Amino acid sequence: MDRLILHEDPRSGNCYKILLTAALLGIPLERRFYDIMHGQTRTPEFLQTVNANGRIPVLQIGDKFLPESNAACWYLACGTRLVPAERFDQADMLRWMFFEQYNHEPNVATLRFWLHFVGERNLTEQQRAQIPAKRAGGEAALALMDEHLAEHDWLVGNAITLADIALYAYTHACEAGGFRLHDYRNVCEWLERVAAEPGFVPMD
Amino acid sequence: MDRLILHEDPRSGNCYKILLTAALLGIPLERRFYDIMHGQTRTPEFLQTVNANGRIPVLQIGDKFLPESNAACWYLACGTRLVPAERFDQADMLRWMFFEQYNHEPNVATLRFWLHFVGERNLTEQQRAQIPAKRAGGEAALALMDEHLAEHDWLVGNAITLADIALYAYTHACEAGGFRLHDYRNVCEWLERVAAEPGFVPMD
Repeated sequence: MDRLILHEDPRSGNCYKILLTAALLGIPLERRFYDIMHGQTRTPEFLQTVNANGRIPVLQIGDKFLPESNAACWYLACGTRLVPAERFDQADMLRWMFFEQYNHEPNVATLRFWLHFVGERNLTEQQRAQIPAKRAGGEAALALMDEHLAEHDWLVGNAITLADIALYAYTHACEAGGFRLHDYRNVCEWLERVAAEPGFVPMD
Repeated sequence: MDRLILHEDPRSGNCYKILLTAALLGIPLERRFYDIMHGQTRTPEFLQTVNANGRIPVLQIGDKFLPESNAACWYLACGTRLVPAERFDQADMLRWMFFEQYNHEPNVATLRFWLHFVGERNLTEQQRAQIPAKRAGGEAALALMDEHLAEHDWLVGNAITLADIALYAYTHACEAGGFRLHDYRNVCEWLERVAAEPGFVPMD
C-alpha cells in the first residue's frame, strides 16, 4: 500500500473517524497537524497542495490527496469487514454516512465547535441566531438514531461498519455542544458497543 | 432485480439524481409523488413506512426503503460504468458526493428552494439572515468545481460517474437560486457534456 498521511486537527471528529477506521483495521497512518483555529488550512500552500476547499481531514495516499472524512474511511475500509459486501447493506451504510454529513454533523459538530472551542460570547450575531435551529436539528438526528438503535445493535446489519464509525465521532462528543446523551438511551448503549471493539482508540 | 419505486417530489434535484442515474443505465423505476410544500412527507404514515426522517427521495427496493439520494444512486449504479472500479477513483467519486451534500446542496439547493419555491417575502427572518452566508458558500462550491473542471472533463477519471450526476442536479438549476452560471465557464461546458450523454433525461 502507498504511504498514508493524515492531514488533520486532532480536535476534529471528522479526523477521528479516519484514525478510528485505521485503528480497527490495523493500518498505520502518519499524522500531520494543523490548527484550524489559526487558519493553518487556509494558507496558499495548503489550498494549492492539500485541499482547495481549505478543510481537514485530507488523506494523502502516495502523491494523491483525498478530502472528505467519509470518503477517506471508504478508501481505507473498502473490501474489509467494515464495509458490507451485500448490495443493499452497502448502500444503506452510505445512507447513514450521507445522513451524518447532512443532518448530524452540521448541527451536532457545529454546536460543539461554536460552544466548546470558539465560545458563545465570541460568536457572530448570525451564528448565535442559528443555535436554536441547530439544537433542534441535532436533537432530531440523535432521536432518529435512538429510534433505529432501539431495535438494532448496529446501524447496518449485525456488526460494526463505517456507518457506526462515522456517527460515533461527533455523537460521543455531543455533550460539548450542549446535547444531553442520557436522553438517548439506545445511543448510549451503542456508544459502549463501539468503544468495546477490538482495536478501538479514543479521540485525543 | 426487485421492483424499484422512487418516492419523490419532481421539483427536487435530489430526486432527479436518481432518475438520471436510472435513465443512463436503462433501469426502469416506478414513481410515487409527494408534495413537500404541503407536508406530504411528514404524515404519520410516511414517517412510519417510508422514511422516519420525513424526507424524499427514498428508493424502495422490494419491501426495503433506502433514503438519501446519493446512497440510492450508489445502489443503482454499483458495479456499472458509472462507478469507477479503481480504489482511489471510487473513493474520489464519493469525495465529490460528500462535498455535494455538505458544501453544495445546503447552499445552492436551499437558495433555489427558498427564493424560487417558497418566495423571499415568505421566508422567516432567520432564513433571510442566512442568505448571504449561503450565497457565499454556494459561490465557493461552484468556484471549486470550476477550478477542477478547468483541467478535467469530468469530476473523476475520464468519463461520467455518479459524482457528475450528483453535482449536475442542483448546479444546472442554480440560477433559480440567484447564482450566475456564466461566471463559471468550465462548469457550463461540463453541464453540456453531461446533457449530451446517451440516455440523458432533463429534470421535469
